[in-house]
Amino acid sequence: MNSENIKNLLEEIKSGNVSVDEGVNKLSDLPFKDLGYAMIDNHREIRVGYPEVIYCAGKTVEQVKGIIEFMNTKENNILGTRATKEMYEQVREICKDAKYNELARTITVKKKEIELTDTYIAVVTAGTSDLPVAEEAAVTAEIFANRVERISDVGVAGIHRLFNKLDVIRGAKVVIAVAGMEGALASVVGGLVDKPVIAVPTSVGYGANFGGLSALLSMLNSCSSGTSVVNIDNGFGAGYLASMINKL
Amino acid sequence: MNSENIKNLLEEIKSGNVSVDEGVNKLSDLPFKDLGYAMIDNHREIRVGYPEVIYCAGKTVEQVKGIIEFMNTKENNILGTRATKEMYEQVREICKDAKYNELARTITVKKKEIELTDTYIAVVTAGTSDLPVAEEAAVTAEIFANRVERISDVGVAGIHRLFNKLDVIRGAKVVIAVAGMEGALASVVGGLVDKPVIAVPTSVGYGANFGGLSALLSMLNSCSSGTSVVNIDNGFGAGYLASMINKL
Amino acid sequence: MNSENIKNLLEEIKSGNVSVDEGVNKLSDLPFKDLGYAMIDNHREIRVGYPEVIYCAGKTVEQVKGIIEFMNTKENNILGTRATKEMYEQVREICKDAKYNELARTITVKKKEIELTDTYIAVVTAGTSDLPVAEEAAVTAEIFANRVERISDVGVAGIHRLFNKLDVIRGAKVVIAVAGMEGALASVVGGLVDKPVIAVPTSVGYGANFGGLSALLSMLNSCSSGTSVVNIDNGFGAGYLASMINKL
Amino acid sequence: MNSENIKNLLEEIKSGNVSVDEGVNKLSDLPFKDLGYAMIDNHREIRVGYPEVIYCAGKTVEQVKGIIEFMNTKENNILGTRATKEMYEQVREICKDAKYNELARTITVKKKEIELTDTYIAVVTAGTSDLPVAEEAAVTAEIFANRVERISDVGVAGIHRLFNKLDVIRGAKVVIAVAGMEGALASVVGGLVDKPVIAVPTSVGYGANFGGLSALLSMLNSCSSGTSVVNIDNGFGAGYLASMINKL
Amino acid sequence: MNSENIKNLLEEIKSGNVSVDEGVNKLSDLPFKDLGYAMIDNHREIRVGYPEVIYCAGKTVEQVKGIIEFMNTKENNILGTRATKEMYEQVREICKDAKYNELARTITVKKKEIELTDTYIAVVTAGTSDLPVAEEAAVTAEIFANRVERISDVGVAGIHRLFNKLDVIRGAKVVIAVAGMEGALASVVGGLVDKPVIAVPTSVGYGANFGGLSALLSMLNSCSSGTSVVNIDNGFGAGYLASMINKL
Amino acid sequence: MNSENIKNLLEEIKSGNVSVDEGVNKLSDLPFKDLGYAMIDNHREIRVGYPEVIYCAGKTVEQVKGIIEFMNTKENNILGTRATKEMYEQVREICKDAKYNELARTITVKKKEIELTDTYIAVVTAGTSDLPVAEEAAVTAEIFANRVERISDVGVAGIHRLFNKLDVIRGAKVVIAVAGMEGALASVVGGLVDKPVIAVPTSVGYGANFGGLSALLSMLNSCSSGTSVVNIDNGFGAGYLASMINKL
Amino acid sequence: MNSENIKNLLEEIKSGNVSVDEGVNKLSDLPFKDLGYAMIDNHREIRVGYPEVIYCAGKTVEQVKGIIEFMNTKENNILGTRATKEMYEQVREICKDAKYNELARTITVKKKEIELTDTYIAVVTAGTSDLPVAEEAAVTAEIFANRVERISDVGVAGIHRLFNKLDVIRGAKVVIAVAGMEGALASVVGGLVDKPVIAVPTSVGYGANFGGLSALLSMLNSCSSGTSVVNIDNGFGAGYLASMINKL
Amino acid sequence: MNSENIKNLLEEIKSGNVSVDEGVNKLSDLPFKDLGYAMIDNHREIRVGYPEVIYCAGKTVEQVKGIIEFMNTKENNILGTRATKEMYEQVREICKDAKYNELARTITVKKKEIELTDTYIAVVTAGTSDLPVAEEAAVTAEIFANRVERISDVGVAGIHRLFNKLDVIRGAKVVIAVAGMEGALASVVGGLVDKPVIAVPTSVGYGANFGGLSALLSMLNSCSSGTSVVNIDNGFGAGYLASMINKL
Repeated sequence: MNSENIKNLLEEIKSGNVSVDEGVNKLSDLPFKDLGYAMIDNHREIRVGYPEVIYCAGKTVEQVKGIIEFMNTKENNILGTRATKEMYEQVREICKDAKYNELARTITVKKKEIELTDTYIAVVTAGTSDLPVAEEAAVTAEIFANRVERISDVGVAGIHRLFNKLDVIRGAKVVIAVAGMEGALASVVGGLVDKPVIAVPTSVGYGANFGGLSALLSMLNSCSSGTSVVNIDNGFGAGYLASMINKL
Repeated sequence: MNSENIKNLLEEIKSGNVSVDEGVNKLSDLPFKDLGYAMIDNHREIRVGYPEVIYCAGKTVEQVKGIIEFMNTKENNILGTRATKEMYEQVREICKDAKYNELARTITVKKKEIELTDTYIAVVTAGTSDLPVAEEAAVTAEIFANRVERISDVGVAGIHRLFNKLDVIRGAKVVIAVAGMEGALASVVGGLVDKPVIAVPTSVGYGANFGGLSALLSMLNSCSSGTSVVNIDNGFGAGYLASMINKL
Repeated sequence: MNSENIKNLLEEIKSGNVSVDEGVNKLSDLPFKDLGYAMIDNHREIRVGYPEVIYCAGKTVEQVKGIIEFMNTKENNILGTRATKEMYEQVREICKDAKYNELARTITVKKKEIELTDTYIAVVTAGTSDLPVAEEAAVTAEIFANRVERISDVGVAGIHRLFNKLDVIRGAKVVIAVAGMEGALASVVGGLVDKPVIAVPTSVGYGANFGGLSALLSMLNSCSSGTSVVNIDNGFGAGYLASMINKL
Repeated sequence: MNSENIKNLLEEIKSGNVSVDEGVNKLSDLPFKDLGYAMIDNHREIRVGYPEVIYCAGKTVEQVKGIIEFMNTKENNILGTRATKEMYEQVREICKDAKYNELARTITVKKKEIELTDTYIAVVTAGTSDLPVAEEAAVTAEIFANRVERISDVGVAGIHRLFNKLDVIRGAKVVIAVAGMEGALASVVGGLVDKPVIAVPTSVGYGANFGGLSALLSMLNSCSSGTSVVNIDNGFGAGYLASMINKL
Repeated sequence: MNSENIKNLLEEIKSGNVSVDEGVNKLSDLPFKDLGYAMIDNHREIRVGYPEVIYCAGKTVEQVKGIIEFMNTKENNILGTRATKEMYEQVREICKDAKYNELARTITVKKKEIELTDTYIAVVTAGTSDLPVAEEAAVTAEIFANRVERISDVGVAGIHRLFNKLDVIRGAKVVIAVAGMEGALASVVGGLVDKPVIAVPTSVGYGANFGGLSALLSMLNSCSSGTSVVNIDNGFGAGYLASMINKL
Repeated sequence: MNSENIKNLLEEIKSGNVSVDEGVNKLSDLPFKDLGYAMIDNHREIRVGYPEVIYCAGKTVEQVKGIIEFMNTKENNILGTRATKEMYEQVREICKDAKYNELARTITVKKKEIELTDTYIAVVTAGTSDLPVAEEAAVTAEIFANRVERISDVGVAGIHRLFNKLDVIRGAKVVIAVAGMEGALASVVGGLVDKPVIAVPTSVGYGANFGGLSALLSMLNSCSSGTSVVNIDNGFGAGYLASMINKL
Repeated sequence: MNSENIKNLLEEIKSGNVSVDEGVNKLSDLPFKDLGYAMIDNHREIRVGYPEVIYCAGKTVEQVKGIIEFMNTKENNILGTRATKEMYEQVREICKDAKYNELARTITVKKKEIELTDTYIAVVTAGTSDLPVAEEAAVTAEIFANRVERISDVGVAGIHRLFNKLDVIRGAKVVIAVAGMEGALASVVGGLVDKPVIAVPTSVGYGANFGGLSALLSMLNSCSSGTSVVNIDNGFGAGYLASMINKL
Repeated sequence: MNSENIKNLLEEIKSGNVSVDEGVNKLSDLPFKDLGYAMIDNHREIRVGYPEVIYCAGKTVEQVKGIIEFMNTKENNILGTRATKEMYEQVREICKDAKYNELARTITVKKKEIELTDTYIAVVTAGTSDLPVAEEAAVTAEIFANRVERISDVGVAGIHRLFNKLDVIRGAKVVIAVAGMEGALASVVGGLVDKPVIAVPTSVGYGANFGGLSALLSMLNSCSSGTSVVNIDNGFGAGYLASMINKL
């Protein structure tokens, strides 16, 4: 509710079209729905085409089912991340169109057609074990209507594999670099392209990896300019941000 | 040197316009200058208007002076970050046009006129003590030819100050959020705007701040989508990335 | 046993009403019951209405059952925290009135009526996944006879949800703010109310959350005055302290 | 500006006593003063008797001087924390009544008489080296108009010293426990009193103290209920919170 | 083999009582038995009454069984620590006299009578959950022939329980203080007795306990002199060291 | 593809023996096989006798089976590390010659005879629990055609066991020292031999071991020159590097 | 004040020899002197020959001088640790007999003759840089009347140096092992002697030493039984504890 | 002293050529010189051409001077690392031939001619600020008689600079890769060469670099086989180890 809205409302109150009590209500009215255990943000519905997103981890199967059931009454596409197969099976009972991506652990419901962007997001992955995180980023970007190019298993241990794909990477409007272990992929990609690079450290590795800390610190200290970092294993966050940038 | 270039070069060699030895040279020739203690990357010179950047910390005054002296023979603008006043005074002896921003600790040399972008970058700062990092980001973005709006001292302890500036922040194409201590500013701003937010944790604080760790972890774990993070106190990195995004 | 008690005892000894040996005993006598594997603190029984509390984690089902069986012979209400459902089922066999709150993981036994305070404690929660910790705080506060208002899912990613509930939060005598991930809720709430805020970091999150460390550091570094912090996931501690403050 | 204020304002607009433009202004008007490098929060002035607080660390001497000069035009008492002696000497030039507490590193200006509370805050300190933090807490509480009792050098290495002072500690409405090293004082005090205990870990110690981490973790894990923790060395935060609780 | 032994051996060689080859053998002969996957240290057998010790964690059931089977052919008592019940059951098949202490997770075999020391070791425990570690220490000390006094559940949250047992604690020749959470027990005990205190941090706790780190750092930073620390949960180490000291 | 190759290729293009398009292809052609979820590096096949290596952790059973099935069509030996028994059983269905080493968790397929080196690698292990890591190193070195000597259970707690084996250790061309807990073995061995020592910290231990951190830091800080360190539990990396050095 | 004392006091009160008020006083009277900024513990004076100890770090020169001036009026020897030379020079003005040990940073005042123990403490040091910590331990032990043998520069990088001194080390009643870097000395010594070993990690080293963390963790995880650890650089604590043990 | 030596000695004793006392002495005699504050290891002198090494950090100027003065009486070359200029100036007074390398902070004394190896060590450095560590490695390798090739400022931010030097790097027998910040250089080099790579993390960087931790973890987690790691900033260790390997 910006200044313009406020001005109009006050004019209406002055003219008597809107009562004072109604005015108080409107000024207090906030755009979300309180369902006890969750407040669903309706604000995003206004902008057509934006999907609803549910972070399923830490929620019960029943809660996920209930939230999607409610969302299904709206017109927007739906994305559930960190969903288990069991959640998906429950959701399908009340929503036939739900799809499950086992690698990305996502539930998606397409309620209207998605027209992809012309420009694309490159999702570059260091190793096979990083694919779940990369796929979460890709699925997120796609349901947000972005064209995505996947370039997999091009970690720096065999850097010639990366160079082979350089044209595809350089053609992107924004690049997501997903890597665990020492996370060097982000720095190398960052040094080779002139586009924003979103680095996603993964928890892939063992020992002094400390649950993704090595890749995280590595990426934060990247000597390549134009790189920023999201949380460890946060494919969704990278896909969401890449979508934002891709649509600028 | 992309496929197209290689093809053309090979055609020239085939036709005899370019000798084989010359061809070998061209294919081996890489775009940088080796000066013993530093390899200056000439690649960036090709793109007109991009400044040369020197990270001055960890270099001797003589090295900084030497590098700027060399760069000064080119046409591009120059940016030195983390520069001490002593460095600046030495640089001025060989470069009258050098300017020093004491807050941002930057040396800049404008060798040609900068035309600013129409869209702008908002640099939002939590507290007075975070200003040096924010200013480094702003100076960087400006010499990269971006319009910058500074919004200072709007940390979440008095959140009404932030709301008062919300229109300016929402009008930006990309937002830089600079905060130390608990770094909550990034999450709050991220929840209020629909633009990419680059979060810069600062080392401002004490005790369990652990040199910026608290703000860093806070920003990496932000519950607001569309936020990514650069290294602690890395104003330059944020300004550089914001410029990339602003010019998309 | 304060100075006054000692004085009285000594007068009694002098007058011969109390023998010397009895005096030695009384001065050595300490208010607890030693049952081998646990010393039950009877001291709290003196203050009428205060519940007995058992921290069930790390105890065997038998130990929990045994302790509650003993406590059940007294008149006070009983609270068991971090209790499993299995513990509850064993306890019910010897104590029909025991209730189990599955979300909060608490066993409670009301042995006398609780009269709630007029003032209330607000328990504010960032996300759905933080609810178990918040509920532990609320259940604790309630069995300590406090009125509690629950405000859930108002994290800073959609700060308008928080503002909608601001009147309820501001009406409290003391506020408990429960949040995982970046824990920014505590700072934002702390900046909006003039009451003590007890911040409870939760282990909700992943990656650079490091088991609640991000929220913990964030809350310790809060730029909002009037905020203090308890251990990660320590809903009981927050509820107990809030009760203390609410009854001042 | 609560619902009641809004209602009244709207009534005034409806009746024409207040113009629409004026109404827009009032609804947008937020209670702070923007001075470029700092936004001074005037909101607190409304509540009579509350001092203005400046965190001086990380600010230049000139900034501190400028802020106090502005505040000195108001009627409230002033508190500057983490102030250097040099800051104080500059401040005295424009404010004769400023006082400096060398131990607590505070600048205070009493602009009106302070009437102390009847109840008091006990500031309990483990060792001589913890005194600066304890004194910051005490000075803060006092300028917020609280009566303070200081109990010093009663760490657990010689616990009889603590017991000797137990009556004074138990008489307080709220207790601040300041300790470095292993920080055991907070747990012991927490086990001996029935009042809220605010634990302040200090960075006093060496080696595996890791800058106060040992005392911080110790206090967060306190087995004594009713204890909460503020940041390492944060005497101000403890004093501010204790004042809030003491005045409930 | 000290200088004296060497001298004697050389005399024997000189006199011809011992051949040169035999001498080479004796000088090379080292007191252990190599069984492929383990080298059993026979050195300890020389000192009568010392038990053989096996750290069972990380060994297979078969390895544990095999080692005890071999040891059972000797005359010394046997102690296995961190043993599972499954290991015990296998061991019993080849060694009827083996005993299992479920709390301490120890297997013991008494092959000759143990005469306890006159002086005793006090094993003081903070909470019920710390008992397994304390019991490991006690069982270790006992099979090393020390008299042990157990004092349980006397953590500092209710310090009067500790004072009640002070005479027993002060009567010991060496004290083992076992505590998790904030580990304050060690400092308090250390301040009350004039005997060596061996502090054993346990991993009991949650959240900012970080697997025993809080108690560990707390104990290392103890302000009480005469205290030293062993590894987290290392009841065996404490019992072994206490035995060494008790027998001096 | 070095300068010489490029020169030859260009000569061929000039003479018309190679077409321009073919030249472009050759210059772009990189030596690996892209199979969607993995890029298999054929580069190593060129050097005869080098095994293919698969890191099986984090891959599905199907992926491991698929990769080995493909590799089995080539002539090189095959090594799979961190393989589960279930993986092995699936692999055996398509490859009868596969062998499983349960201790080392390796799958090996010998497709041609291996001629061992004359010089040998000594794999020295501190305790029985470190054997899996040591065995992974040994198996790796052996399939890379190195002679290996295993020296087990010679940790510094009984240093005479180590000295007994000193001749074997000193006879090696390179030494691998595997140890958990405090990792002192690496320093002691490093001080006793004049050969490169590759230290492998293991996660064996508990408490303040922090998953191998203690041994890792210990080895990195070794006061013995000639020692370097690989990741915690990284037996493969040590074996691979030792092979490289042994064959120099 | 034990049970016997209480009994006697009560008898005196009963008989009228002691008045009730006097009795209250005596029971409240605790054995220390409160001087405002420090409470001096007189309890130790009772045991003849025990020195007073002042930890000088974090105290002002004036405070140190004041405390020693007071102590100088008593008959006990005095030890000040972590003392600067400036402190010593001030102290000498009021106490001619004060001695300064520059390496150990100790001030000592011998007010009565010290008769050394027959048994001795071995202080074993890994490197030259660890000597200040070792000397603090030795000076502490000596003023507590223990005979001390110093064995320096016998770190494990050249383990033959250690073996040369083994007889002296084995002859001690208790051993202090001082080492920085990887701290392996403690484990090696612990494996070679049958006496209690007090391990003192030092902050000597760089890089992954992290201020002594590597040696600390190493020593806590020592595979040698009979070893315990004090804080990093805590020579005093080791000397004090060793004295306790040596006098058993 | 191996078995052969012992046998011969015993034969001599038997035959009376060597007395028993002399025999005891010889068997006890260890090859080092004890000078009170340092034990100089003469063992290395036996192998001709090996330099004596002094780690100067943490030693006083006098100690460094004294040690070099003693070493100067021998025939070996001398290397002092981490030496200050002040140390050098003192050393020059007693040793005219001493040379100081300001970048590497080394003192060297060539007492006999050094004949360099044919094979060489490549020292590859990421950035200008890493040069001091790289130079320490190079100087160390050179005085140990190795040919060294320096390749500087080839960090991965501009990876074409690295490729330009690939032939030189690949020609080495062993490679030292020195990098701070994210340390990706080691992984990239490791993926490009078939030789052992010794990775040296440096403390160059800021913020989440945490004193070299980011580069250290990155290198330990390197996905490139054949890489091992030395301590942060440990140029000497890398040079020493590289020399060992180069001379195999």
